[in-house]
Amino acid sequence: MAIQHAYLAGPEVFLPNAAEIGRAKKRLCEQYGVAGVFPLDTVLKGQGRELGLAISAANEQLMRGSHFIIANMTPFRGPSTDVGTAYEMGFARALGLPVFAYTNDPTRFEQRTQQFLSRLGELDPDGTDAHHMSIEAFELSDNLMLAGALTEQDYEPTHGQAELVHRFVDLHAFERCLARAANHLQVK
Amino acid sequence: MAIQHAYLAGPEVFLPNAAEIGRAKKRLCEQYGVAGVFPLDTVLKGQGRELGLAISAANEQLMRGSHFIIANMTPFRGPSTDVGTAYEMGFARALGLPVFAYTNDPTRFEQRTQQFLSRLGELDPDGTDAHHMSIEAFELSDNLMLAGALTEQDYEPTHGQAELVHRFVDLHAFERCLARAANHLQVK
Repeated sequence: MAIQHAYLAGPEVFLPNAAEIGRAKKRLCEQYGVAGVFPLDTVLKGQGRELGLAISAANEQLMRGSHFIIANMTPFRGPSTDVGTAYEMGFARALGLPVFAYTNDPTRFEQRTQQFLSRLGELDPDGTDAHHMSIEAFELSDNLMLAGALTEQDYEPTHGQAELVHRFVDLHAFERCLARAANHLQVK
Repeated sequence: MAIQHAYLAGPEVFLPNAAEIGRAKKRLCEQYGVAGVFPLDTVLKGQGRELGLAISAANEQLMRGSHFIIANMTPFRGPSTDVGTAYEMGFARALGLPVFAYTNDPTRFEQRTQQFLSRLGELDPDGTDAHHMSIEAFELSDNLMLAGALTEQDYEPTHGQAELVHRFVDLHAFERCLARAANHLQVK
């Protein structure tokens, strides 16, 4: 079988050492017989709006050339997955690519959302938010569209328990997810 | 031409009067010669995890049967679009459906993210967050993957300026986006 390419989605692209994390993820992929594809792999020039849109187009192209996706669903600036990663999960799913995922926050979505709203002072006593909008309570790891994307493989994302300060750089859960994906897809 | 179906993505499904908002959106769609498809259109039974996953599967099915998507990108519980909506934008995009969008918050993503982090006390003086992760500054309306999905149509989402308290129920920007989409797709 030709080598499988895994698109490595996640908010670590925003880290100051994003390229280093990308290389570390790719080295792990190699150990499992997978070719890791990192969103920063395409070298692009330009700035501002033009550069942002070029990155978007390049990432879609990288996904179209990949065989599956491993998404880092560690909550990013709120109770949920990074929206760029969520977009990519939907994109990969509609392309028919298997969607694997991990998160370094093992708490349920309902609990995270409550904690988040509470911190902002926006948790209403009736259990809704400041706009009276309900909190999803389906015993899932994140928004049901994201959780649903994972059902065909193994139901739940791989859970890590990295300390808060390490949650975007700790790759233990990533490696376990990768191992599971490689095994599931019988890469080796 | 057969009537065009528009999948109406957005966090208004979490409103207490979600069904009413869905009906209002569909009535507007009718006026523009479009058949609106609302995420709550499929009647489902069950509870908890089972129900959440059934809704996910039903929504993917509704998107597969639609001709384009109108996404409500009004920031939801954070500086960005609702993650379920982001997922659906990616899904629709990979299916090849035109992706239209509107938002009732006209501020730029960079500014919203700074305000959000500042409110949480997580905006570092160097302009990054508590994890030293950078803030996207591409002069776009949201994360570059989402903004990129809109470039093929009209570049920017339709901007409304609803008061904060009305931002999830005010349909003026939705209607303008719908009119633009109908015109673009030459529905009438």
